[in-house]
Amino acid sequence: MSGTMHTLDSSLIPRLPASSPTLFEAKKQKKLSFEAMGKELGRDEVAVAAIFYGQALANDEDISKLSKILGIDHKELESQLAGIPDRGRTIEMPPKEPLIYRLYEIVQTYGYAYKAVLNEKFGDGIMSAISFSTKVEKETDEKGDWVKITLRGKWLPYSRF
Amino acid sequence: MSGTMHTLDSSLIPRLPASSPTLFEAKKQKKLSFEAMGKELGRDEVAVAAIFYGQALANDEDISKLSKILGIDHKELESQLAGIPDRGRTIEMPPKEPLIYRLYEIVQTYGYAYKAVLNEKFGDGIMSAISFSTKVEKETDEKGDWVKITLRGKWLPYSRF
Amino acid sequence: MSGTMHTLDSSLIPRLPASSPTLFEAKKQKKLSFEAMGKELGRDEVAVAAIFYGQALANDEDISKLSKILGIDHKELESQLAGIPDRGRTIEMPPKEPLIYRLYEIVQTYGYAYKAVLNEKFGDGIMSAISFSTKVEKETDEKGDWVKITLRGKWLPYSRF
Amino acid sequence: MSGTMHTLDSSLIPRLPASSPTLFEAKKQKKLSFEAMGKELGRDEVAVAAIFYGQALANDEDISKLSKILGIDHKELESQLAGIPDRGRTIEMPPKEPLIYRLYEIVQTYGYAYKAVLNEKFGDGIMSAISFSTKVEKETDEKGDWVKITLRGKWLPYSRF
Amino acid sequence: MSGTMHTLDSSLIPRLPASSPTLFEAKKQKKLSFEAMGKELGRDEVAVAAIFYGQALANDEDISKLSKILGIDHKELESQLAGIPDRGRTIEMPPKEPLIYRLYEIVQTYGYAYKAVLNEKFGDGIMSAISFSTKVEKETDEKGDWVKITLRGKWLPYSRF
Amino acid sequence: MSGTMHTLDSSLIPRLPASSPTLFEAKKQKKLSFEAMGKELGRDEVAVAAIFYGQALANDEDISKLSKILGIDHKELESQLAGIPDRGRTIEMPPKEPLIYRLYEIVQTYGYAYKAVLNEKFGDGIMSAISFSTKVEKETDEKGDWVKITLRGKWLPYSRF
Amino acid sequence: MSGTMHTLDSSLIPRLPASSPTLFEAKKQKKLSFEAMGKELGRDEVAVAAIFYGQALANDEDISKLSKILGIDHKELESQLAGIPDRGRTIEMPPKEPLIYRLYEIVQTYGYAYKAVLNEKFGDGIMSAISFSTKVEKETDEKGDWVKITLRGKWLPYSRF
Amino acid sequence: MSGTMHTLDSSLIPRLPASSPTLFEAKKQKKLSFEAMGKELGRDEVAVAAIFYGQALANDEDISKLSKILGIDHKELESQLAGIPDRGRTIEMPPKEPLIYRLYEIVQTYGYAYKAVLNEKFGDGIMSAISFSTKVEKETDEKGDWVKITLRGKWLPYSRF
Amino acid sequence: MSGTMHTLDSSLIPRLPASSPTLFEAKKQKKLSFEAMGKELGRDEVAVAAIFYGQALANDEDISKLSKILGIDHKELESQLAGIPDRGRTIEMPPKEPLIYRLYEIVQTYGYAYKAVLNEKFGDGIMSAISFSTKVEKETDEKGDWVKITLRGKWLPYSRF
Amino acid sequence: MSGTMHTLDSSLIPRLPASSPTLFEAKKQKKLSFEAMGKELGRDEVAVAAIFYGQALANDEDISKLSKILGIDHKELESQLAGIPDRGRTIEMPPKEPLIYRLYEIVQTYGYAYKAVLNEKFGDGIMSAISFSTKVEKETDEKGDWVKITLRGKWLPYSRF
Repeated sequence: MSGTMHTLDSSLIPRLPASSPTLFEAKKQKKLSFEAMGKELGRDEVAVAAIFYGQALANDEDISKLSKILGIDHKELESQLAGIPDRGRTIEMPPKEPLIYRLYEIVQTYGYAYKAVLNEKFGDGIMSAISFSTKVEKETDEKGDWVKITLRGKWLPYSRF
Repeated sequence: MSGTMHTLDSSLIPRLPASSPTLFEAKKQKKLSFEAMGKELGRDEVAVAAIFYGQALANDEDISKLSKILGIDHKELESQLAGIPDRGRTIEMPPKEPLIYRLYEIVQTYGYAYKAVLNEKFGDGIMSAISFSTKVEKETDEKGDWVKITLRGKWLPYSRF
Repeated sequence: MSGTMHTLDSSLIPRLPASSPTLFEAKKQKKLSFEAMGKELGRDEVAVAAIFYGQALANDEDISKLSKILGIDHKELESQLAGIPDRGRTIEMPPKEPLIYRLYEIVQTYGYAYKAVLNEKFGDGIMSAISFSTKVEKETDEKGDWVKITLRGKWLPYSRF
Repeated sequence: MSGTMHTLDSSLIPRLPASSPTLFEAKKQKKLSFEAMGKELGRDEVAVAAIFYGQALANDEDISKLSKILGIDHKELESQLAGIPDRGRTIEMPPKEPLIYRLYEIVQTYGYAYKAVLNEKFGDGIMSAISFSTKVEKETDEKGDWVKITLRGKWLPYSRF
Repeated sequence: MSGTMHTLDSSLIPRLPASSPTLFEAKKQKKLSFEAMGKELGRDEVAVAAIFYGQALANDEDISKLSKILGIDHKELESQLAGIPDRGRTIEMPPKEPLIYRLYEIVQTYGYAYKAVLNEKFGDGIMSAISFSTKVEKETDEKGDWVKITLRGKWLPYSRF
Repeated sequence: MSGTMHTLDSSLIPRLPASSPTLFEAKKQKKLSFEAMGKELGRDEVAVAAIFYGQALANDEDISKLSKILGIDHKELESQLAGIPDRGRTIEMPPKEPLIYRLYEIVQTYGYAYKAVLNEKFGDGIMSAISFSTKVEKETDEKGDWVKITLRGKWLPYSRF
Repeated sequence: MSGTMHTLDSSLIPRLPASSPTLFEAKKQKKLSFEAMGKELGRDEVAVAAIFYGQALANDEDISKLSKILGIDHKELESQLAGIPDRGRTIEMPPKEPLIYRLYEIVQTYGYAYKAVLNEKFGDGIMSAISFSTKVEKETDEKGDWVKITLRGKWLPYSRF
Repeated sequence: MSGTMHTLDSSLIPRLPASSPTLFEAKKQKKLSFEAMGKELGRDEVAVAAIFYGQALANDEDISKLSKILGIDHKELESQLAGIPDRGRTIEMPPKEPLIYRLYEIVQTYGYAYKAVLNEKFGDGIMSAISFSTKVEKETDEKGDWVKITLRGKWLPYSRF
Repeated sequence: MSGTMHTLDSSLIPRLPASSPTLFEAKKQKKLSFEAMGKELGRDEVAVAAIFYGQALANDEDISKLSKILGIDHKELESQLAGIPDRGRTIEMPPKEPLIYRLYEIVQTYGYAYKAVLNEKFGDGIMSAISFSTKVEKETDEKGDWVKITLRGKWLPYSRF
Repeated sequence: MSGTMHTLDSSLIPRLPASSPTLFEAKKQKKLSFEAMGKELGRDEVAVAAIFYGQALANDEDISKLSKILGIDHKELESQLAGIPDRGRTIEMPPKEPLIYRLYEIVQTYGYAYKAVLNEKFGDGIMSAISFSTKVEKETDEKGDWVKITLRGKWLPYSRF
């Protein structure tokens, strides 16, 4: 981890499920990165971070592994992480956080261009945000570091009825 | 183009620069896809679509080529496309268009997860939306078609002052 | 049609594609109901009304049939209806129109209850609004008339990644 | 229940009546689904979930049964559930939760189409959201699972005065 | 009419159906009050004013009478007034117009008090705004003039399901 | 009281003055309706409910009577109810509660019609929401129950200056 | 007039009644200040400016005088100025114009302080914005120029009911 | 004080600095009006009320006097009142409180009229809301009581650069 | 001018005064930069650009010079530029244009830090945006180009009253 | 420090990280200005204030120095300040605080003018708010005190793709 351990801003807690402060507190103690945890769980690091923020489902196996590597009582974690996430309420939109705003700006700037190209490539439909995965990569060249984010979603054509 | 020729919804025109209806009208006549135009211009198809929607700069060479392949008077096109785009006003946010909304929802759902992972990989900064490129690919497997969108931006660390 | 011929409120036109006033004007002349047109097109009447409001795709066959039964020049209609809809911009949300507001209120009132029941019946995912169809039926009993709206969408489970 | 036990996201509690955490906590202990409770109460499972989220009235009989099957002190439950619901404040609109958003998007996309068809079938009026019932069904075919939601409301014609 | 002939503010026209400027222009020429027209039509003056603003349905008889007393070509008026109103889009809420704002403020101030009293008098339900009529009366005493507005709507109990 | 005892939704408390939970708790214990309290205080039941929700002034006599009939310590109640209400912050507008929304919709639908009729009856001015009273009545006929709400306000002409 | 002739920004016209561009155009031709016109009409200059912006009523005498001093055809002006103003829609709130924003900021900063002092001086009520007049004065001392705005409104006590 | 002692609505406390409840509680105990305190401090009563609501600076002398007349420990008050106010967050705009709304409505109605008159009297600039004072007076005539609010601010011309 | 001639996006025109398209059209013809015009007028280039966008006053001398260097008829320009700007309505806030958004983000990120430092350096007051000037400079070092924006405003202390 | 010690308004705390009240409380005890702390840390005073408000990163050295000069336990401070800031959530936009609003107004007024000048000086791109520094200076002349704020950011040209 060439960057900095990501921690939870305490003022976000009222917008998060009970599991979030539990997980972040343990992560801070154990000094574990999302990448390291992702390897342990066999899941992408973005998915793990999404579990921490209450935005992705942790199944029984995930809970067991998280409990073990983070040293959290299994019962407590299971009780807090059981249930399907109530996604989307953490961020106030438009996002005020500069890093997240840049992603929002990309949608604002290129939204219709993506639609145009996707319609011409696939027809009438959408890219699913559910049957979907994403990952983050770091690339370095002589100009410095580059972020590469990949979004991959199933194409869903509109039904004809 | 296995999809459908993308055309301009006339009710969007008041939110677009004068060049947009000119370009879309010619595209419809010439039945050219963004992919085909991209190849002619040596630019990515998303960038070409962004030019059509007034969201990306067309340089002199682009204007000459567009004028030629679309059969638009060079002077007229140059006059309408000269100048630097006034980006961002086309879409009303949150986007109501379902395809674009899904991209917005990805930011809403995974925004903090991206921040967490990027901070741990790179430190304190953002992924640039300016020193940035993007592309769209189509992948097909037994489950059907998949959209793969790649976002690639320069990492900008916060200055210390 | 025991009700009243539906016509287009002229103040909505700036929010609609060019095809909408063309279609509604012809419909008024021909005094055709959406139900009758639906039968001609082999499509549900809601889908036909959605085409009129620029919210659903009309394929080549639809355009030919609409052109014929509505007496609109085929070329003109094709030119206006070609292209994939730019959905969602017609209604200002929350809807101010009382009939549409009642549907919105149902989402507001029962939204979490639907989520709860769907999660227990299907797991972590959503009901697709794309791989989706809907219909409207009229039922009458001693208390009067009842509207029955059916929404049917594919269940999409969240991908694990 | 082929899905997952639905639990309450703790960050929603400030938007809910006092009865909600009581009910959800007991449900979690008793591992009861909404479907099972619906059978006990002789009510639809959506209505039961709506009671849990403070969006539907529980009458004396409902309270007695809920108290019994959930093992909650009758007096306490009666005190928390007495009174008529203050509906609508649980969800922030537009809904950020993806499953609920899809329902909202259906209203946004098909709202005017529903109005058009209903006006032609019934005349000038609305479908009641009060004299109203709804249910959720699961259908499975070779393509996978489908959600079928039925909305049934009394047609109310506008008074002439 | 002890007050002043009500006329249409031209800046409202884009938010109104085509019938509104036609009706208001004729009214101005004929110098007819809403009260006088209400008597001719056998309808309440508020309903007539609502027709003028595109907020209430005019049936065939209303159209014939309006055409006659206002001297508007019957065909033209029928064409503009046919169809069911698309209610609610005229006013931007919260209302900026001071007279209308006062009504809005009454809802804001006494909304919960009305709910409390109505729940105790009628149970769980709402007062219909559809099966509904209203009227305006003028009362004068030593302190000056008083406005009396009566709202009368059917009580609709929530269905149990 | 043929309806149901109105109680306070606990999630509303942060938007109410300290007197509200005190009053509602006592009301629940004493099982008193607003109508019954109105008779004791010689005030309209809507005004009493408005006092409970912090939207109307209770004078010394009101406080004494409320203290007595509700069994609340006079000093405590006086301390909580002293002072002039800070009206309007209880409801988030547009109202999400269906009963209150119907009143809001009446303003949205008939706002300009009321203005038109009032201007013609009274001239340039407004109906006061301050020098104002209101009441709720129940009427029953063969079709069922009807709510009749009366709004009565002083007419205030605009000053000429 | 030590300041500058006030003219109408053309981009405001869609938010104003038809009379506004007529009046402003004539004023520009005649080079008349609001102060000069106020003297002719026997009204305060703020009231005259409010007539120009469609925010105050012009009676028959005002119309005659304005027609004369501005050289506007009497019939045309009467037709455009007849009718009671539809106030409040000219400014988008919060005001973006810096001079008007400062007035808004005064309400934001001192709003509760005014309420506190007025309640202690007058009891429970409001200062009327209808039975109201205002004026603007210029004062000069060694520090420069000062604006003095006076607001004078009738105190309206809340009715007890 | 012919009105009513102004007290603090407890639901406002989260929007106020720590000093506000301290000051209001002491004021209630001492039964002091803002007018009386203003005389003690040699400041206008509106300024004193603004201090109570965290909208104006209290200097050392003000703090000493307030501590003395209100019987608050000097150290505690100094600690809570030290520092420059973070103005403007108390009121949610548009103001919902009817008295404050009337002031807001005056800005909405007469905003452009004030700008017009001020531009003609002073040129291009604004009335300062910082180099500013205000006062409230009570006037009584045969029609009743009148509120007179005076706003006095330095004229600031726009710099030419 | 190492950059690109700045031109006017036609979709902005409805939000601008009549002078803006006149000025921009002439500028395009004459191929003049803001810097060049600033030198001619003896004003800063930012001020000149602000005149073009209707955000700054052009005095008689400015109008004469602009008329001359841009080849616009003096009478026409004087008529369009006369009058004091109605500032602030060009941009929809938050700004969607990425360059302008970055300035907005600086206020969002450092707003309280500026307030903290200014309060400690100057006391209780504000930096004037009226008695104010600004300029833009270009600096180049081995890392590339840097923008330096200077904001300089008069410190205005809050009046004590 | 000729101004006033800047302290934290307690009502802001819920919008700030846990470190903010810790830092401000210690600063108050130690009576240290941001300028003094800036000198100790070798950082600009604006950056130090931004750390206090959770808007800038404190590195290990900063934390050590702050711990020492403010007398805060190093462990505690490290735990609260570790992690990368979640910027932007402190201020509600548009800013209500008058000093911060003035900066916002400058963006609103001169936003397009800055864009115009920067495009002509640099081409198509933005000024970075990340690769960025800022400072505040005080200047005094015969007219009084002036604030000079400098913003310096890297120019980022849009990538061509």
